[in-house]
Amino acid sequence: MVDVAVVGAGQTKYGNHPLGLKGMWSEACDAAFTSIDGDFSPKSVDECIIGSVAFGGSQLGNTAAILTEHSGMNGVSTRRVENACASSGFALRDGVMAIKSGHADVVVVGGIEKMNDLTPERKRFWLGVSGDTEWERLAGLTFPGTYAMMARRHFHEYGSTHDDLVHIAVKNHEHGSANPKAHIQKQIDFDKGKSGFMIADPLTLYDCCPTSDGASCVVLASSDIAHRLTDTPIWVQGSGSASDYLALHDRPSVTELAASKIASRKAYTAANCNAMDIDFAEVHDCFTIAELMATEDLGFVSKGSGGEFASEGRGRLNQGDVTINPSGGLKSKGHPLGATGTGQVVEVFNQLRHQVDQNRQVDDAERALTHNVGGSGATCAVHIFGRERRGN
Amino acid sequence: MVDVAVVGAGQTKYGNHPLGLKGMWSEACDAAFTSIDGDFSPKSVDECIIGSVAFGGSQLGNTAAILTEHSGMNGVSTRRVENACASSGFALRDGVMAIKSGHADVVVVGGIEKMNDLTPERKRFWLGVSGDTEWERLAGLTFPGTYAMMARRHFHEYGSTHDDLVHIAVKNHEHGSANPKAHIQKQIDFDKGKSGFMIADPLTLYDCCPTSDGASCVVLASSDIAHRLTDTPIWVQGSGSASDYLALHDRPSVTELAASKIASRKAYTAANCNAMDIDFAEVHDCFTIAELMATEDLGFVSKGSGGEFASEGRGRLNQGDVTINPSGGLKSKGHPLGATGTGQVVEVFNQLRHQVDQNRQVDDAERALTHNVGGSGATCAVHIFGRERRGN
Repeated sequence: MVDVAVVGAGQTKYGNHPLGLKGMWSEACDAAFTSIDGDFSPKSVDECIIGSVAFGGSQLGNTAAILTEHSGMNGVSTRRVENACASSGFALRDGVMAIKSGHADVVVVGGIEKMNDLTPERKRFWLGVSGDTEWERLAGLTFPGTYAMMARRHFHEYGSTHDDLVHIAVKNHEHGSANPKAHIQKQIDFDKGKSGFMIADPLTLYDCCPTSDGASCVVLASSDIAHRLTDTPIWVQGSGSASDYLALHDRPSVTELAASKIASRKAYTAANCNAMDIDFAEVHDCFTIAELMATEDLGFVSKGSGGEFASEGRGRLNQGDVTINPSGGLKSKGHPLGATGTGQVVEVFNQLRHQVDQNRQVDDAERALTHNVGGSGATCAVHIFGRERRGN
Repeated sequence: MVDVAVVGAGQTKYGNHPLGLKGMWSEACDAAFTSIDGDFSPKSVDECIIGSVAFGGSQLGNTAAILTEHSGMNGVSTRRVENACASSGFALRDGVMAIKSGHADVVVVGGIEKMNDLTPERKRFWLGVSGDTEWERLAGLTFPGTYAMMARRHFHEYGSTHDDLVHIAVKNHEHGSANPKAHIQKQIDFDKGKSGFMIADPLTLYDCCPTSDGASCVVLASSDIAHRLTDTPIWVQGSGSASDYLALHDRPSVTELAASKIASRKAYTAANCNAMDIDFAEVHDCFTIAELMATEDLGFVSKGSGGEFASEGRGRLNQGDVTINPSGGLKSKGHPLGATGTGQVVEVFNQLRHQVDQNRQVDDAERALTHNVGGSGATCAVHIFGRERRGN
């Protein structure tokens, strides 16, 4: 079986980006292509798969074709994958399968979203439409409300508290403050984190990720080709994905995301490892409660212990069992919907190559996990990466 | 290398469909699942890939998750692929690669579009946005205009005529009139075909495909599994895809679609055959001129002879070298954007199993080709199918 490696990865800064769709994508591709150690030509790419929710948020349709053309890959087989906020996590999975199928040797996977030039009405539409429409959106429920209900129920069932969530916000702001690509590069202390105005009880401003523009790009290669392109490939050791009911009321439990649990079990099996073998994880913390649940669903802590894990600071950089969101996560690095999944891989690539600034490097990072969720848990893609080729 | 077979395929009738998104998808899935000879459970599906342009045209976002849930596949890894009118052609390609990668044994690929409940403004947007926006759409160019320019130039360079195009319309209406799933089931004679009112000179009403609702669903299986599910698998012998510049002015020629040529060459190579080995083809005739160019680009006739091929009736059912669009094509069967690519496979599946009504069966059909184009040629996916497993 062919193995798959990440040989290059790059992204724009997340935030209110001055460039439009084409400009942001080019910037991400340039960063990814120049991160490749060996000779690389965009023309050598066999497949391109781009994740985006709202055509990248712009009036430019046929997003995949126009972006592929604009980044020097004209002629390359290309398509857009849309899976709400998990769009590029699934683009990554499809790229991995394209290489393993023998149909492709080099695949570009990426994601993009331009959110800050939308009118408030369109922004609400494009965000809301990723959740359930018939039973939730049209009744007025927004994503903060959805996650607020999950939080309330988790507090009730497991005794977790809003203070636990504040610790997550403080940690991710701390991590993001050192990340030059992060949307919000400032620390907050616990008191500040507790003082945010209410968004959807119990979630306040500091529990919610920002609305970001951004693009990210990852170059995958088959084992044979990877060694020509770099001496330090980062191997995709496992890929797992799953879906769940879109509307909360259909799920047996709202204190976990079943899709996260299933996807991660599949990924661990493929990589022949378990949660204890992961040095750091980029998890989908669109809201702080989402990170709390992710630490449980991915198996880093037992069910119900996520609040304790957070408040004891065990996910802080090099402070505990496993570093959670060294990039700052969606909470602080930002969340340009379609770009988020492959943006997580950019962080993993740089961390596992020990190439980030010393003040934010995960010590002895050998193995990492990415966790990308679509539509309050309707879909999830989990990937495991390592410096070693071992795994599936 | 694992081979891939189509073991089931089904679709809704195309047209102004009474059901909404969920209902249409269920109807297509039911048709596909019940077409499988052996025991099949939707729960056994490993991956689901759904092509759609405009969230299926409805207000329901997170399309893949909600449709996967609604068709008995809850939990299955799923995503939407959007590539303008080639969305499900690329869903098919990604499904084939998923099986060949060893990550999946059974994959559902399909497509869906609800077009007839959109306001005229939204319909124009969702159709127009698949073409180039900056240089074409915002200047007022619509798809009929784009293809009209291709036609004018083809007439000029190769001496083809509008009469040639009329012959294509007459043929596809003849084929579609016998297809119970077709949107427009009525024949037209040559005089009628010549008398359509002008849409975009030289293209008249009868040169243009209709605006259709519809869904289609195809079940793929690995060689090992296929034999358990059916005694008559239809093998995917080759898959090829490519992209091109989105805006016409960037292309060296507008009398051909370079993406069609490249994609088909790749597919022929993979299937170890050439155009002469194809018994019938479902080609992307969004406009009659598109079919004329496709017969050239796919290698059925030499460059510039497409008009002659059409006017001599050599693409008519069992009348010439190769039957073109036995289903009626987009022109008569209809064109529900995202559903079209896998809808072509439904026709191929039934024809190659010799299961369509006798009056429209391609004689001794052994091998067929599907040709699905996105955005006036910005992307193209070509697949070759056969009763024999031979090929890649």
